[in-house]
Amino acid sequence: MAALYDRYAGLFLHTNAAFLCERAHAEAPSSQTLEALASCYLRQGAAHRAYATLRGQTLEPHGRYLLALACHRLDKDSEAEAALLPDRAARAAGPRESSQLLRSKASPVPHGAAGLYVLGSICEKGHRANHAIAYYELALEKDALMWVAYDALCRLGADVDPQHTFRRDAPHALKNETVVDPPTASKDENAPPQRTPRGPRVLEPTPPSAPSTHRPKALSFASTPASTPLERPRAKVPRTASSDRGFAPYRNEVPSSLPGALLDVLRILGSARRDLAASRTDASLKALHSLPARHFDTGWAQHLRGRAHFEKADYDACVNALQSMRRCEPHRLEGLELLSTALWHLKDDVQLCYLARDAVRRDPRSPEAWCAAGNCLSLQKEHDAAIRCFHRAIAVAPRFAYAYTLCGHEYVANEAFEKAVAMYRHAMRLDGRHYNAWYGLGAIYYRQEKYALAEYHFQRALSMNPGSSVLHCYLGMTYHANKRCHDALRHLRLAAQAEPNNPQARFQCANVLISMDRHAEALKELEAVADHAPKEASVHFLMGKVCKKLGKLDDAMMRFTFALDLEPKDNNLIKSAIDRLEEPDVSEDEKF
Amino acid sequence: MAALYDRYAGLFLHTNAAFLCERAHAEAPSSQTLEALASCYLRQGAAHRAYATLRGQTLEPHGRYLLALACHRLDKDSEAEAALLPDRAARAAGPRESSQLLRSKASPVPHGAAGLYVLGSICEKGHRANHAIAYYELALEKDALMWVAYDALCRLGADVDPQHTFRRDAPHALKNETVVDPPTASKDENAPPQRTPRGPRVLEPTPPSAPSTHRPKALSFASTPASTPLERPRAKVPRTASSDRGFAPYRNEVPSSLPGALLDVLRILGSARRDLAASRTDASLKALHSLPARHFDTGWAQHLRGRAHFEKADYDACVNALQSMRRCEPHRLEGLELLSTALWHLKDDVQLCYLARDAVRRDPRSPEAWCAAGNCLSLQKEHDAAIRCFHRAIAVAPRFAYAYTLCGHEYVANEAFEKAVAMYRHAMRLDGRHYNAWYGLGAIYYRQEKYALAEYHFQRALSMNPGSSVLHCYLGMTYHANKRCHDALRHLRLAAQAEPNNPQARFQCANVLISMDRHAEALKELEAVADHAPKEASVHFLMGKVCKKLGKLDDAMMRFTFALDLEPKDNNLIKSAIDRLEEPDVSEDEKF
Repeated sequence: MAALYDRYAGLFLHTNAAFLCERAHAEAPSSQTLEALASCYLRQGAAHRAYATLRGQTLEPHGRYLLALACHRLDKDSEAEAALLPDRAARAAGPRESSQLLRSKASPVPHGAAGLYVLGSICEKGHRANHAIAYYELALEKDALMWVAYDALCRLGADVDPQHTFRRDAPHALKNETVVDPPTASKDENAPPQRTPRGPRVLEPTPPSAPSTHRPKALSFASTPASTPLERPRAKVPRTASSDRGFAPYRNEVPSSLPGALLDVLRILGSARRDLAASRTDASLKALHSLPARHFDTGWAQHLRGRAHFEKADYDACVNALQSMRRCEPHRLEGLELLSTALWHLKDDVQLCYLARDAVRRDPRSPEAWCAAGNCLSLQKEHDAAIRCFHRAIAVAPRFAYAYTLCGHEYVANEAFEKAVAMYRHAMRLDGRHYNAWYGLGAIYYRQEKYALAEYHFQRALSMNPGSSVLHCYLGMTYHANKRCHDALRHLRLAAQAEPNNPQARFQCANVLISMDRHAEALKELEAVADHAPKEASVHFLMGKVCKKLGKLDDAMMRFTFALDLEPKDNNLIKSAIDRLEEPDVSEDEKF
Repeated sequence: MAALYDRYAGLFLHTNAAFLCERAHAEAPSSQTLEALASCYLRQGAAHRAYATLRGQTLEPHGRYLLALACHRLDKDSEAEAALLPDRAARAAGPRESSQLLRSKASPVPHGAAGLYVLGSICEKGHRANHAIAYYELALEKDALMWVAYDALCRLGADVDPQHTFRRDAPHALKNETVVDPPTASKDENAPPQRTPRGPRVLEPTPPSAPSTHRPKALSFASTPASTPLERPRAKVPRTASSDRGFAPYRNEVPSSLPGALLDVLRILGSARRDLAASRTDASLKALHSLPARHFDTGWAQHLRGRAHFEKADYDACVNALQSMRRCEPHRLEGLELLSTALWHLKDDVQLCYLARDAVRRDPRSPEAWCAAGNCLSLQKEHDAAIRCFHRAIAVAPRFAYAYTLCGHEYVANEAFEKAVAMYRHAMRLDGRHYNAWYGLGAIYYRQEKYALAEYHFQRALSMNPGSSVLHCYLGMTYHANKRCHDALRHLRLAAQAEPNNPQARFQCANVLISMDRHAEALKELEAVADHAPKEASVHFLMGKVCKKLGKLDDAMMRFTFALDLEPKDNNLIKSAIDRLEEPDVSEDEKF
């Protein structure tokens, strides 16, 4: 009954498909009708029906795959795993043995790469990262086009090699199809080997390991524009409406375009993705810029570019990239959560408002839209309303970690620290490598003067995003509070290096140097800070105090007067410092 | 790129499919890549992305079909219609001309029957029932397996003939497929003509118009059990995991099982469905009982049986049918809204509680589950909580008319008549043939003594469900209030006929007869009522009054005493009647 199912499900007539499959299953139940029925239910979004239909039945491999999908959606992950790997020993094995077992055996996992990918995502959800990595790697080995597995490997911090994974002769799903069906494939073998890795911006060289043996079969899909003879015949015979779809495309298009050029692109995207995951943002951006223009100007590439800039806390460039993502694909909602956070940092409330409205209008069931709305309200200091938006984001996508983190930030703004901690913890549980949540927790502990805990959390966050200036800065401040001045100085200098435009790191640096009585160096740092932020009273005030320590009383007087001019309101502290300019410093209490 | 899309979308790996299709579209944009991309977005549930992708592009037929689907989901119905029927004249034509135009022309609607069905549902949503009927009829003519179109025709009250529609030689989608591909189909032509319309319970005769010319190709799918040579080869070659799905099923199964027996079943189901829609519940039940056991014992058939009994207000039988539906398919949630209402009528709070809990646990995003929960709370007199449940049902499925009606009933229970009227009106707008809402409105007007309005609404409700005892009874009461005693009597007698076990109709009948001074007949009616409901004080009291009118003072005394015994609390009225037994009746005021 797969024909019945495919016919109507392919045309999105799921109710009809389900009705007919139910009748067919009643007429003559078989594993095929059962599978078709379960597929219908899955398509209709009724995973619980698919599960109830398949559970307890003797299943063929495809049925086991469907059962696993249904279980996975219903959070019955151990059942899902058992469906894919009925062998208890294989499930109990460690990641390495399990991987070897699966490699050696005659693939007990249904649908090869697809089944392995599902196994991987089950393990990932269950926080068994090593198993997940092993399964994802196996899935990619079997099918190089299984990009989601590659993406997951990057997410989990696994060691991946895009050059090898996406090499031209890597096994992939479509290749096997043509090998299986040579009579139809041979039709195109006489086609000339057209300009395969074309485009002026492909700087990435074709790897030397890519032999051309598969080229004749693996025709570049770049070489099949809309008007080649491979086009579906339905454009020419529009008369017989009922025969113009259904199974026609399969017969005509299986051998048509083999993704040689696709693999070329995946190599570049793959290294950009891997470098980003490993916090090598510059390398990632370089890889992205080496893409051909037609691939660079896509939503996905611009999203990755935005993420790279976001990780570097370069919010202007991030907004630039993500706005061009919106120009390429105005309907893309992924990435808008980052764009809205970047606009929040830049305090661009007009753009942020516009973005949030547009996103919620497009799809009120997407977490990204509600994150944008929350950020927009947060910028307007409407923290309670923002919290409601983030809760809505969580309601529509309970596994979207970033919404929990943003919600935590809002609770911090409301000084509801316990709720904030719970939110950050939830985000961590969903995504072990979500450094923003570790940072948020660290910042709370720092504020609560629990410096040992703060240090631990900042270190964990840094291990995930070693290039982050903000994280280095906070860790340095924590070390300073713990009186570990040398460590503090090291991290603050790293922070200043990572983001030369941010004066905060150098200001904190100066603070540390002062407590180390290295006043001359502190003064130098503060002068640099004052160049970047000349209107910041606290900088001038601190400079005045350092000058006094160094005995430059005239300079100190000048700095105190600057500070007084810049902050006429809060002037008691400054005035008293001016009054006591001639007296020696008594205590450290007034230091800030 | 359909191959890429089909491969991964068929395995429910929509993210991978979308990613690869995006890359392919960036590499070499064509109508195929555009269509594949839009299909991915539709599968992911992101209709707004599919819409944004396809809108404003030059589209081939399949692209237009996808655009129409996206528009339809986004409630942009006029755009959806324009996508399917680009010819402005065809859209502007009346239903008959439009139908003739589409029949004569070389099918401008993409995907034939499927496209016509979508057109029909667009028109139905836009309250253009005649157009919808024309399109649905055309869709069924082209593909007899388009059950959803048949179901919609029944819903709209159109004249359908299941014997003709589902005749054995009716054109259908799968038949064309085998005609197109004879080499593979011929493989099975030597198979013996197996027992085609089998099963002892098939009472429906094969129509004489069904010739056997198509039989050899249209092999009954009943004759292909799981172990025939037509089985997919993947069970035998499970080794090459990556080739065991993908396109294999299409090649193997297109010609395998042609739905001859399926059409036989559809004929029976079709007449059951039509008879139910035309309120011929007994005929519908008879058709259902003529099904072979294997089809009778399915969720769908039992659901229809339950609906038929529900329409007859035979709640015991309805519960019986729907509980057996739950036994056949415990995961089926459709129909539970009726089951819960039937249990509400039977005041079976234990079963109702159990049902509501189970349904909400299975799928908290189904309107049926929340209707069951609302009915459960309503039975416990928790009307506000019930209203919240019905609002939740509306939130998860804004086009589920019954939830609005049930919500209206709760507002009536809370005496919030304006809100109830709004709810009933909303239900009517969604489903013009939803008689429960018309009944609800009529009942409100009756209560408010707006008898002309009440009469109109009950008449409309009756035109949709002419067999309903409750509706006849209410209409009779309305006529009585309007002093149209003969009409009242006629409808109350119809009500009593339709449901002999319900004493309400006969009691009201007696009331009418009394006001017509036909006391002897009234007494007869009341005696029959008293047989059914011997413990009802008001019946005995009325009998006493009638006896008094007839001069049977002893009988009157006996009846009054019975009434007094049965209702000792509210006895002032009865006592005063006993006291005045010897006096003649003064006014009509005390009559009730």
